[in-house]
Amino acid sequence: MVTIAVDAMGGDHAPKSEVEGALKAVKSLDVQVILVGREDVIRRELDSHGSWAEYPIKIQHASEVITMDDNAAKAMRTKKDSSIRVCARLVKDGSAQGMVSAGNTGAAMATSKMVLGVVPGVDRPALATPFPTVKGKPTLLIDAGANVDCSAEMLAQFAIMGEIYSRVIFKTDKPRVGILSIGEEEHKGNDLTKAATPLFKLLPINFVGNVEGRNIFDGSVDVVVCDGFVGNVVLKVSEGLSEAIRHMLQDSLRATITGKIGAVFSRSAFLDFKKRTDYSEYGGAPLLGVKGVSIIGHGRSNANAIKNAIRVAAEFAEGQVNRRIAEELARTQLFSETAGTE
Amino acid sequence: MVTIAVDAMGGDHAPKSEVEGALKAVKSLDVQVILVGREDVIRRELDSHGSWAEYPIKIQHASEVITMDDNAAKAMRTKKDSSIRVCARLVKDGSAQGMVSAGNTGAAMATSKMVLGVVPGVDRPALATPFPTVKGKPTLLIDAGANVDCSAEMLAQFAIMGEIYSRVIFKTDKPRVGILSIGEEEHKGNDLTKAATPLFKLLPINFVGNVEGRNIFDGSVDVVVCDGFVGNVVLKVSEGLSEAIRHMLQDSLRATITGKIGAVFSRSAFLDFKKRTDYSEYGGAPLLGVKGVSIIGHGRSNANAIKNAIRVAAEFAEGQVNRRIAEELARTQLFSETAGTE
Repeated sequence: MVTIAVDAMGGDHAPKSEVEGALKAVKSLDVQVILVGREDVIRRELDSHGSWAEYPIKIQHASEVITMDDNAAKAMRTKKDSSIRVCARLVKDGSAQGMVSAGNTGAAMATSKMVLGVVPGVDRPALATPFPTVKGKPTLLIDAGANVDCSAEMLAQFAIMGEIYSRVIFKTDKPRVGILSIGEEEHKGNDLTKAATPLFKLLPINFVGNVEGRNIFDGSVDVVVCDGFVGNVVLKVSEGLSEAIRHMLQDSLRATITGKIGAVFSRSAFLDFKKRTDYSEYGGAPLLGVKGVSIIGHGRSNANAIKNAIRVAAEFAEGQVNRRIAEELARTQLFSETAGTE
Repeated sequence: MVTIAVDAMGGDHAPKSEVEGALKAVKSLDVQVILVGREDVIRRELDSHGSWAEYPIKIQHASEVITMDDNAAKAMRTKKDSSIRVCARLVKDGSAQGMVSAGNTGAAMATSKMVLGVVPGVDRPALATPFPTVKGKPTLLIDAGANVDCSAEMLAQFAIMGEIYSRVIFKTDKPRVGILSIGEEEHKGNDLTKAATPLFKLLPINFVGNVEGRNIFDGSVDVVVCDGFVGNVVLKVSEGLSEAIRHMLQDSLRATITGKIGAVFSRSAFLDFKKRTDYSEYGGAPLLGVKGVSIIGHGRSNANAIKNAIRVAAEFAEGQVNRRIAEELARTQLFSETAGTE
């Protein structure tokens, strides 16, 4: 049975969401969970859900917490016994096969990279974020914020890692991989995308060329590759716009009497819609390329999101995504060959 | 009275939207319009609306049309009598004070730059796109796609141009100007945003530091500056996500019986919502920094969008935005000083 370490102190609703999510996971999945953080706090939260002795769930004490406001680099130096750090150590020493944290994203990424190290052949781990689409199956955006300034070679590695993840976790057959750009034609883009295109053509992937921002949501592409600056902007624009639309729609509904009645009647539709666009269904964003499994959840993760992140971490470990990434990168001679031509 | 040249052949619904929009404009605004394109086609469309002899509206024949599928650079070389080109010539020779096109954006931008030239002190014209916000007043994103690879100095010029536009057209008092980045802290960003920050601090603007993608929609900033690659991705992500949400919401409404009833009741609310998020209210995106006024509309512009683009073009000309930009850039010694340190 796979064991997943969960940072119980990280998210906005910690430890409530984390503990509840862990209980949901051990009850419904073939997985063992180690909740990491302040033992007394976690135990109290666990006890509030009744007896949990029968479930494969354990507590690992960690005395410190990295908050959302902490500077990631500084917190890593000063908080050596943080719950994130202890999670990573459990993965490193083999006590767990994967970790989940909904805490400070920067600290979770930096700690994972430092403690776990990188898969052979990978230059830079990258954050892969699933986006909901009108077709149901999510589109994976990589890199969503781990590396701000990227080379074309880095984008090519992101493509290989994202493609494997889409195949293993989302069961996509021959995932369509595109470069995020400002037009579908090959000549449309910036220096980076233009340099990446010839490299992508050499990769053993189903490369569909340039894609545009709208394609992230229309289900026409499975893996969208970009540098981490652009990816993070896309992520935050999407979150901000979704929230703004919800806000404006509610205002409009409230503004009219028929709207008020309509709001009551359409509540179930809104709930259905919310579920369809709910990021928590996809279980967080994997940091691809680190040795081990590190899934980074949204700060606002609820219990369902944590449960799904644990599920994804287990599938990631069982699917041996990292072994496949290492093999694929070793097979793709591309990077060593092109390195000299830069 | 200000005269505006309107490319009658450009948009997806041309010449219908263009002609209808022009008629709306001359009837409600103190403006004169020259409709540019195939004379017989435009005349037939105009006649279908009844007598128009009493209104300040004229036709200027142009024999060629640049389509959406045309390569912008090639079309500019080969189609010398295109409706876009003739519009630009009318502005250049003073027959019109501004132009509006909802056609091929690349061709409209390139033609405007080539025929009109740039305002003294401007290195690169930039496309400024208004985004709807929850607060009502739009946020201006600049550059939304005119320049893919930018220097920090270019971003600083975009800031000055966008700030003046926000003041004159949106009547914003002391517009808050931010750099689009991946965190509010100054050290968060890529090489470009980090190089831009010290320059922005020297500008005579209300610089609020880094802003994130979500801030484009929450009304916390008036002018958001980024390079044209990032800006164009933001624009297309926003359009794609809005459409996806509308699509998914409709699906969800249809999926339940109460949803069907709810849909009927909440129709007026949806219409209100649509109006609040309707880009056509803002009248297109100005290409800031060209000598003269060039407003670029969305390909899907309806008559209302065209009318508002004509209104914005007139306000732009009357507000002497270009003179202010030239003066501000001349006053800001920054660019000549820093040029040597690059």
